[in-house]
Amino acid sequence: MEREKISQAIEILNEPGIDIDLWLVVDKESEVLTDPVMDYVIGAGVTWLSFFLFFKSGEKYAVVGNLDIEKIKRLELFDEIFAYKDSPGDDLLKLLKKHSPRKIAIDYSKDSPPADGLTYGRYLSLLELLQGTDFAEKLVSAENIIARIRGRKSPEEIRRIKKAIDITLQIYDRVTGYVKPGLTEKQVAEFITGERKKLGYEASWEEDHCPSVFAGPQETGAHSSPTDRVLKKGEVFNTDFGVIYKKYCSDLQRTWYISQDGETLPPAEVKKGIETIIESIKRAFAALKPGVKGIEIDRIVRQYIVSQGYKEYPHALGHQVGRKAHDGGALLGPDWERYGNLPFIPLEEGQVFTIEPRLYIQQGVVTIEEMVVITKDGAQWLSSPQEEIYIIK
Amino acid sequence: MEREKISQAIEILNEPGIDIDLWLVVDKESEVLTDPVMDYVIGAGVTWLSFFLFFKSGEKYAVVGNLDIEKIKRLELFDEIFAYKDSPGDDLLKLLKKHSPRKIAIDYSKDSPPADGLTYGRYLSLLELLQGTDFAEKLVSAENIIARIRGRKSPEEIRRIKKAIDITLQIYDRVTGYVKPGLTEKQVAEFITGERKKLGYEASWEEDHCPSVFAGPQETGAHSSPTDRVLKKGEVFNTDFGVIYKKYCSDLQRTWYISQDGETLPPAEVKKGIETIIESIKRAFAALKPGVKGIEIDRIVRQYIVSQGYKEYPHALGHQVGRKAHDGGALLGPDWERYGNLPFIPLEEGQVFTIEPRLYIQQGVVTIEEMVVITKDGAQWLSSPQEEIYIIK
Repeated sequence: MEREKISQAIEILNEPGIDIDLWLVVDKESEVLTDPVMDYVIGAGVTWLSFFLFFKSGEKYAVVGNLDIEKIKRLELFDEIFAYKDSPGDDLLKLLKKHSPRKIAIDYSKDSPPADGLTYGRYLSLLELLQGTDFAEKLVSAENIIARIRGRKSPEEIRRIKKAIDITLQIYDRVTGYVKPGLTEKQVAEFITGERKKLGYEASWEEDHCPSVFAGPQETGAHSSPTDRVLKKGEVFNTDFGVIYKKYCSDLQRTWYISQDGETLPPAEVKKGIETIIESIKRAFAALKPGVKGIEIDRIVRQYIVSQGYKEYPHALGHQVGRKAHDGGALLGPDWERYGNLPFIPLEEGQVFTIEPRLYIQQGVVTIEEMVVITKDGAQWLSSPQEEIYIIK
Repeated sequence: MEREKISQAIEILNEPGIDIDLWLVVDKESEVLTDPVMDYVIGAGVTWLSFFLFFKSGEKYAVVGNLDIEKIKRLELFDEIFAYKDSPGDDLLKLLKKHSPRKIAIDYSKDSPPADGLTYGRYLSLLELLQGTDFAEKLVSAENIIARIRGRKSPEEIRRIKKAIDITLQIYDRVTGYVKPGLTEKQVAEFITGERKKLGYEASWEEDHCPSVFAGPQETGAHSSPTDRVLKKGEVFNTDFGVIYKKYCSDLQRTWYISQDGETLPPAEVKKGIETIIESIKRAFAALKPGVKGIEIDRIVRQYIVSQGYKEYPHALGHQVGRKAHDGGALLGPDWERYGNLPFIPLEEGQVFTIEPRLYIQQGVVTIEEMVVITKDGAQWLSSPQEEIYIIK
């Protein structure tokens, strides 16, 4: 897939509004810390300070340490590879001088972690190598390039995400049959983890809270581990979970209600809670299309939920999903400083988003997280939406 | 182990020559890219821009996004945790103003990747939050703190490394019984990987070249994958491999000779090659002690190997090992630009190093990699050194 992603990168460099001549990816001791984009365009790691140059013209070069060259050669991704023993400076400068790029994009971003793969130390090393030239003044952020590379999913990427979703929903189906009142959050999590391992997949994020399970009323942060809290009759519980299928993630939440003895239907409060969440997701879905900004989608839902008498959810409505569960770039989020410019980036066809509003009732936390892909003029469901609360008898 | 490592960090802040009042660790979306030091002092990841403050006085604070707070609280590592919804700026500035640190260490390093965990984007975010104060002028590199935290191994860390070494040597023993001339590098690698998986351990670095296997004469970079090259009678082959035991790595190389029909001893050239390597390692070992610089150790071996008529090896003599196979900090290396200041850092008690010279003969590449720990006045073997070439009949 690296070859496909490099071609995509070069196409992006040639798109209107990008205005960058060279995308320069920097890496070093990838085993210790690697630029997340390396996995997309190189698919291997390096040991010494290395530069991967992708020019708008389509030319592609690598400058790597001498013991890494054989490995990089075998990838057959570059027009030419330069190996150094002492310092990469000479080869890098020769390439820069030959092509005289007016703008050079490097991988940093205040707002989008997947586009922020250049460490400060590597940035300083780059500046040192560029000393005595004016190339340092030409450095700009590659966040728009990386957002497009990660955001625009190819049919194969969508297929893999869809498969990760199907596996997750299949495991969720089994939860309904397994759970009984009296189990703890931890026991439910262990069941889900057991099912995942039986199928042989990795969790979409840190195992200690993938799944997370939240039983009954609580305001615990969504990213914390399951506890010994007991699932009780008359309360709801929810889970947040996903698996990785061939490098691509799912990220889905579902909510269950545990019936009281003799109860035929959940209480009105539970019914209204889940219906509000389902309606919120439908409203978000209906408004999604290329060109819309995430803040607009988030606002529709935030206002709707507040209008129904609930307090607003303390997070964004949805994020992109790809090789990471939180894949960065355009976000369906509010105008809070911690989200920077992400809620203001117009959506694009091919992006995969979660929609995950949440509200609090006396019986617990009600939340559903679906996944969708932006199409040419709207959006399509990737997950089969939860249509009513799941009931444990 | 996080509690132990935080205590160690605060001790280090109080050591002469450090002169830092506050160590400030920054992280965000740890699933996408995390500061490698997080695994030592926090042992969990975060979602939003987070600050972990370790003061020389022993005070410890965290500033994290509101959905991460529960998880960080449960770690019970901090005196106080501040949760924010919008921006971490207010809480961070309050803490800084209250303590007025003269020097604030942050995780960047041009030379040492494990100490270079702060991305350029996160650095810019930090600068933005510090605007209007003079704290930005107080920022310095935390590389000396991190080198000591990672470098100085506790008895438990040594025990784990020793165990990873024992597992590796046990697998190497089986290689001698398995290999026959006519097998390919790939087949030998598959055998080693199979044995590793049977025992249930992870590889110390990327699986595609852990192990690497090099058969016969070649100058292929040490970090490339096994090929279909065939192991032939009358040639040598070597492997480079390690496993992870409870987060700690081994990294060991061994060399074998494949006898010709009717041959009772390896040819003189093979014998001289392996003896030169073994003698080199002994000389390095004898010179190791706290306070010596890595460049001195590398020079002893480099000069000795050249004096025996071989060309010098195209890499450093040895590196530190810990949670990463290449664990950064002080290096037994030459004065090449790509190694920066690492060969000039005096060695310390408790550091674990590889010693891995290499030389080229007509029959192939001869190399051994041993592991040692620096003691109060010398060094101790962690691996049982290879004492002669292993022979495949």
